[in-house]
Amino acid sequence: MSALISKIPAKSMFSQGEVALVGAGPGDPELLTIKALRFMEQAQVAVYDRLVSDEIMALLPEDCELIYVGKKQADHRLPQEGINDVLVQQAKLGKRVLRLKGGDPFIFGRGGEEALYLLQHGVSCHVAPGMTAASACSAYAGIPLTHRGVAQGCSFITGHLQTEGQLDLPWPALSVDTQTVVFYMGINTLETIKEQLIKHGRSADTPAAIIEKGTRPQQRTIRGTLTTLPDIVKQYNIKPPALIIIGKVVDQFDEKHLDNSGYFQALEA
Amino acid sequence: MSALISKIPAKSMFSQGEVALVGAGPGDPELLTIKALRFMEQAQVAVYDRLVSDEIMALLPEDCELIYVGKKQADHRLPQEGINDVLVQQAKLGKRVLRLKGGDPFIFGRGGEEALYLLQHGVSCHVAPGMTAASACSAYAGIPLTHRGVAQGCSFITGHLQTEGQLDLPWPALSVDTQTVVFYMGINTLETIKEQLIKHGRSADTPAAIIEKGTRPQQRTIRGTLTTLPDIVKQYNIKPPALIIIGKVVDQFDEKHLDNSGYFQALEA
Repeated sequence: MSALISKIPAKSMFSQGEVALVGAGPGDPELLTIKALRFMEQAQVAVYDRLVSDEIMALLPEDCELIYVGKKQADHRLPQEGINDVLVQQAKLGKRVLRLKGGDPFIFGRGGEEALYLLQHGVSCHVAPGMTAASACSAYAGIPLTHRGVAQGCSFITGHLQTEGQLDLPWPALSVDTQTVVFYMGINTLETIKEQLIKHGRSADTPAAIIEKGTRPQQRTIRGTLTTLPDIVKQYNIKPPALIIIGKVVDQFDEKHLDNSGYFQALEA
Repeated sequence: MSALISKIPAKSMFSQGEVALVGAGPGDPELLTIKALRFMEQAQVAVYDRLVSDEIMALLPEDCELIYVGKKQADHRLPQEGINDVLVQQAKLGKRVLRLKGGDPFIFGRGGEEALYLLQHGVSCHVAPGMTAASACSAYAGIPLTHRGVAQGCSFITGHLQTEGQLDLPWPALSVDTQTVVFYMGINTLETIKEQLIKHGRSADTPAAIIEKGTRPQQRTIRGTLTTLPDIVKQYNIKPPALIIIGKVVDQFDEKHLDNSGYFQALEA
């Protein structure tokens, strides 16, 4: 294994006073990219939040300083402005600053905001894409996001309330039958999601799934329909992080083949 | 580096007579996941297509047999049914069969079809998600797919013609101003994409970009608007693989900071 990785030229290097915005994926350390690992190895300080798994944090160099800026939905430990300032301050100290993020920095990761702020303050940065939850969790759960004759595309959307406390989403667009829709952070707004999608024409019987703690050893996937989604959350006591997948792709594989690790087991005839 | 990777428990193992459907990402070998590398290392035969980059193919073990099943849009070397059969045949020979795919197996990768076919023929398989082009190429190009106040979600869709020679897509859904839309394989149908999106309400001045050979050393990113997309293809002689990104996110970063590698360079004041 080490022989194989050493054959990949090391392009991802960063300098003192630079920041690397690195996607760590949804939890399983095997889903880290080589690029992410290389930035992690060089980091002198890591600015991280609670979406980065413990197994991944444990990989950081022993002498890497850690700064926690975790955000819970209801309990913002540090607002985004504070995180931006921490990154600039640490970079201005001349360190190699790793901004480690769950998932992908550019898909609901606010990486764009952080990179813009850094540039405005004279700090150069690198962006390393990470495996976004929709892609990784669905593979582990046995749900193809696109599937010939079933889903010709997929949409990723956040169910997180906007600042006005509203969930103002393009409901007609999300209600198209031939698109798989994946909601990030939608557990608390699921009743609204269900009502609006049905109201705008998506069948109440559309297959749907909730994936809790995706790609982690504790991953659970509960399948149902658009109608039953809110009940699933209650019945199974689903907690964030959880991903919601809506569309006919959810039912392509029989659960008897699946084990929440991306292994599809054939059965004896 | 090798020390760091050795700290990640090796869960991704496969047995004789199994297939691993592995996403290789869009080209840069540093975007391979640890999981992908581990399956590659164990492979006895690799079934691959032209979307897997040469640099990644070069990482396969020396004694790994190679079977090319590349598909061009106009020149199908092996139809999907043939690929399915090759996978089953190789697995039945008792080999560890690597099905290496560009991008992600479950996003326009037809991995769902291959996994279903394998299960139907008594072959167990693993699915390892890969970095999909939309996520990776946009990071390298400096285009966040979601951005606060600009895009609250993103849609991935194929511009590849359906079997009837039509491009039958949910145009109203794709024309929503607050969603970033990413077209895979849309170069040949760009005139239709442009016309339909504008007809359904997307502004003709919407920022848009074409990313050619994304994440590879030759990556080019050409920015324009929805209106100018077809001209860009002609003027710059764009060839597949190319990705099209439509939405206000395209213009969030000034090109003077960008270099097509995910490095965002701050400039002297």
